[in-house]
Formats: sequence, structure tokens, C-alpha cells
Amino acid sequence: METYNFSAGPACLPERVLAAAGEAAKQFRDTGMSLMEMSHRSKPVVSLFEETTERITELLAIPSNYHVLWLQGGASTQFSMVPLNVLPDGGCADYINTGAWSTKAIAECNKIGKANVIGSSRENTYTYIPKECVQNTESSYLHITSNNTIYGTQYKVIPEVVNRDGFLVADMSSDILSKPIDVSQFGLIYAGAQKNMGPAGVTLVIIRKDLVGANYRTLPTMMDYETHVAKDSMFNTPPVFAVFVVNETLKWIEDLGGLEAMAAINEQKANKLYLEIERNSLFKCPIAVEDRSLMNIPFVFSESGLDDHDFLSFCEEQGLMTLKGHRSVGGFRASIYNAMPEEGVDALIRAMQEYEKELA
Amino acid sequence: METYNFSAGPACLPERVLAAAGEAAKQFRDTGMSLMEMSHRSKPVVSLFEETTERITELLAIPSNYHVLWLQGGASTQFSMVPLNVLPDGGCADYINTGAWSTKAIAECNKIGKANVIGSSRENTYTYIPKECVQNTESSYLHITSNNTIYGTQYKVIPEVVNRDGFLVADMSSDILSKPIDVSQFGLIYAGAQKNMGPAGVTLVIIRKDLVGANYRTLPTMMDYETHVAKDSMFNTPPVFAVFVVNETLKWIEDLGGLEAMAAINEQKANKLYLEIERNSLFKCPIAVEDRSLMNIPFVFSESGLDDHDFLSFCEEQGLMTLKGHRSVGGFRASIYNAMPEEGVDALIRAMQEYEKELA
Repeated sequence: METYNFSAGPACLPERVLAAAGEAAKQFRDTGMSLMEMSHRSKPVVSLFEETTERITELLAIPSNYHVLWLQGGASTQFSMVPLNVLPDGGCADYINTGAWSTKAIAECNKIGKANVIGSSRENTYTYIPKECVQNTESSYLHITSNNTIYGTQYKVIPEVVNRDGFLVADMSSDILSKPIDVSQFGLIYAGAQKNMGPAGVTLVIIRKDLVGANYRTLPTMMDYETHVAKDSMFNTPPVFAVFVVNETLKWIEDLGGLEAMAAINEQKANKLYLEIERNSLFKCPIAVEDRSLMNIPFVFSESGLDDHDFLSFCEEQGLMTLKGHRSVGGFRASIYNAMPEEGVDALIRAMQEYEKELA
Repeated sequence: METYNFSAGPACLPERVLAAAGEAAKQFRDTGMSLMEMSHRSKPVVSLFEETTERITELLAIPSNYHVLWLQGGASTQFSMVPLNVLPDGGCADYINTGAWSTKAIAECNKIGKANVIGSSRENTYTYIPKECVQNTESSYLHITSNNTIYGTQYKVIPEVVNRDGFLVADMSSDILSKPIDVSQFGLIYAGAQKNMGPAGVTLVIIRKDLVGANYRTLPTMMDYETHVAKDSMFNTPPVFAVFVVNETLKWIEDLGGLEAMAAINEQKANKLYLEIERNSLFKCPIAVEDRSLMNIPFVFSESGLDDHDFLSFCEEQGLMTLKGHRSVGGFRASIYNAMPEEGVDALIRAMQEYEKELA
């Protein structure tokens, strides 16, 4: 039986990427060595990093006034690195609170300066994206979480920064590479790899060159973007194997036709699942229609008295794994990142239809 | 032809560990999924972390009053995390400067408090370990680098901390797991994995429980040991695949007979190479005899006029790779970590003998 993994992250990766990873663990290209044994200063590894950076620059059409960095520590480390590097001493920044990750980003900013929460859907269990938030004129930047893994919301329109000198910062951990973006709208983008890009252990940062090196405060060397810019992400030993897997994932997206093609596939997958949730008498989606994520689709029983565990077991029997909703939302969540094949979504829809019949 | 990789790190790993990594990249245990696709909250991954921690606790005989953490960011991040977490505001610590890594650790401490450099072999290109350093009574801790990858020195006797409330901190990145240690001599041990433990991307921290949670200053959540202690290294998505490779490496050491057996093998390998360097008319080792590392063995031509590149090419023709010395030392360096088989050392010795005959 084919199994499908609807995990919110780390999440499924394309089969051919996993096969390439398995091969590189044993031998990397024609080096006679495993990639895990090779010095990061060796030519093949330096080439791998250059290649990965070129590939993502091409795919995301990153303008030449941006740096691309491959770091460690996940988005959780970026929550601090962003204000440490780009928030002036005594300064403030605007944050829109769209869930657990925004909340953590806000808390880290408040340790360093002041985070103005100019919009929040917290009182409504984050079921929508706050719009028409009034930005503060003195804020250095506006921070958003472009897609909210737990609640299943996603920005469809990227807000414009009002301040002339201000810039937009986005945590794109859970929708990076799912569609084309206009990088020039952002000052800084960061994303953990483990949803749409590769395995856990590497974090992408795309930062406008003029935002590097402000030196607002004394920083641990590893927390300073300038350190990593100066050494092309090789100041210290980088997570080589994880970067390799990212590169293979980027190749896979290229071969599908790039991000326009990827977006079309993602829309196709998400639309048919949302349609089934609407159609099926058993289920409903609690999220505002205009803010529904194409990546993480939460749904719940439309009436009380039904047993979540029973539907989850029913799904597992059909190879549909890790569909349990986050504990703060309950119900179910289908994470259908880039690597989830349309067949997986079709199988889930069939299961929802069969379950409906069983209970009829 | 068999090839041997004398890289200083990332460095060679046991064949069976690489085979297991290749397999886990495709399927992890009986889950039907690649390890890289699995949620860190899933039972198999949580079990993997528990197993890895238990295994290293057993191998290093870590007492129950210590925490074991698996973090990201390498030793370079620990250079800051150590003083940020355990140095009181306005406090100072003693550091012994035995090379490039100590120098970096000292620089990071000086951003947070004051590093007293109570011993240094810098004036002599770090060819020895400073002894009889006078510790400061007001220092919170004494920091050492137990093995110096670039220069090839290693502590044979661990210094005792004089202050009653003081403790020892050691960067063991390049000799952890090469021999038994008495963990109770240390307050805090840290080590990047990519020399003796596994691939780049994971860092081991062993910290005495009473040193966690002092709250001397406001810290980024990810830089606070307490964060990671409270969540068993799963506060955010950890580098799961790298931890898996560490676990496989630990199993391999167990099967060899543990750290006593590992130490005997390492002594055997290093001793025969040092003997050949002494015997061979072409070569000499610049390092003080009593401080010579069993992990990284630098050697140079004993007379001028010989061409380093020629010997390196001669070695490469025989499958002996990455023997070039660090640029700050020159000559040659054989890194012979745990995973370097004795046959590799024998092959290098034969090459040195043949080269001597060729030039005779």
C-alpha cells in the first residue's frame, strides 16, 4: 500500500531527492567519499554551496542587491537575529500576530527593542489574517509570518510598508518555494528548510545588502549576518548534508518547470481538498475563506459527537498518516507541501467520502 | 585502490555508519518513511533522541547531575553561549590560549565579560600546551581546548580548577569519544560532531545541572541552555538526521569495546606514525613531545629545499588524501580520528618510507 505523510514538518520530500541523499551518504559525485566525510573547504563542497545558491537565486529571481545565506538554528534563531541585526538601539518594529510563530518572534524582539503588535487574530484562534493594520511611523520594519502552519492561514496580499526607510521582514518557513514571490518587496526573508526545502538543520536567509553590517550592538559573532556574508556561509562548518538535500529539492522544482508550475500544482491540490471539505457533510474548515493556506489545511467535524480518533484510524488504515490537528486547534490538518503528490490528496478525498458513506 | 581521507574535519566516518545513513535517508527503521521526512515529535524520532542520549551517557559515563544537549551552530556558537549562560554580569573567566579555536573563544567571552588569558603558546606557534598557569581567584571558570586541530597539541593532564566555586569548561570538538574522560572534572563540555562523532550540523553539550538557569542576563531564547534542557533538545526542530548518524557512530564505538578499546586503538595508530616521523630522515614533528595529539599529527620536512606539493601528489597517487597542513603551519597534517582505520596509517607510513627511498 502507498502511504502518504501529511506531517506539518519535517515533511515529505520527493522520492528522487531521498534517493540522491541516500547515494550521497555513501558517495558524493565522483569523489570516492561520502559527502558527510568531506571538508567544507574542499572544492566539491564549495561548488555544491555555490550551485545551491545560484539555483535558488534563479528560482526565486533574487535581485543582485540581496545576499543568500545558509545558516543553522532554524527560524527560532532568526526570531532573535533579525532584531539583533536590523533594529537600532532603542528602536521599535511592527509585528502582525498570526499565530504561535509570530508570537515567538514578537517575544524575541521585545527582549531587544519594542515590538508593536499592530494586528492580531489571537482572540479568534488565529482563523484569519488581520488586514488594514496601522503601521507606526517610527518602526524600522514590519514583520509577518507568510504562512501559519498550525492555523492554516496564508497571506495572499503582501502588505506594503508605509515608512520610506522601513522594510518588510517575513518568516516564510512554511511556504517558501511554493509559488513565485517578488523578493524586492522584502528587506529580509528567512525560512527553516524542513517544510518545502529539505531536511531539518539548515535555514535560508535572504537579506538586502544594505541591511547587513549596521552594527547597532555588540553581537555574538555567529549571530551577526555580516559574519556569514563575509564567508559565504562558511565561517564555521556549515550543515553540508542538509544543503545538499536542499539543492536536490531545488533541482526537482526546476525540472517541474519552476515556481509558476509549482504554484499551479499547489493550487490544484489545495482547491480540490477545500472543495471536498465544503461538500462533505461531515467536515468544515474553520479558516476565513480569503486567507486559507495552500500548504496546511485544517478541518474539523462540522457537528459534535464524532470521534476524531476514529477518523484518524480510518485514514491510517488507508496509508494516510499524521493527519492529527495541532493540539491547540484539534481536529485534522493536512499539510500538503510541494512534495505531497496529487495522488496523496486524491487518496485523502476518497477516504473522506468513504467515511461519510460509512456514517450515513 | 583503497583511499584514505586524512581531513581535519568533516572527516572520515566508519563504513557501516555511512551505510546506515544511506539506508535511513531512504527508510528509517520500519516506518516506511525516510528519516528526513519524519516529524521530530513522532515516536520513532523521540526514541532516537532518547537512545542517542542514553548511549553517550553510558559511553562517557556521564554522571546523573549532568544534562546532555544536542544543539545546532557548532562550537563557534558555544564560544558565546558559554559566557552568556554561566558568566555573571561584570564577571571574568580564565582562558588558556592554545590556538585558533581558543583565540575565538576568548574573543567571544570578551564581548560579554572579561577573559583572563592565563597561559598562551601563541609566541611559539602553539607548539606546546602552557602548564602551571596561575588562575585568578575571582574567575568563574577555566576554559581549555582539549585538542588543537590545527597545531596538533592535546591536553594529557586536565588542569584542576583552584577556585572552590569555579569549574572547568572544555571545547572537546576534536577529541571527544577518542578515549575515556572523567566528566565530573568538568562543569561544561561542548563538541561539534564533525570530527569524531558524525556529520556537521549537530553540537553536543554536557552541562552540570546546577549551571543551568542562572539568568545572569536577558538571552535570545535559543542561546539559553535552559530552553533546550526544558525540552530535551526539541524546543525547535532539531537536526534529526545528524543525530541519527551520531547514534550509529556511538553504536560502532560500543561494538569495538567502548572508549577504553577506542583509546588503545588511537594510541596504537598515533604512536606508530610518530615513530615513523622520528625515524624518517625527511620529516620532523614541530610539537613538544609531551603534548602531541593522538588525533591531528602535523609534520614538516626536516630540511628546506624539499617541495611539499611533490610529497602531497606522491601520497594522492597512493590514495592518501587531504594531507596538506593548515596554511598557518604549512607542511603536512594527518588527522587520524576514531574512524581512520589502522590500515590508513600503515599506508601513510609506507608512503613516507618509499618517498625517503626515492629521494635517497
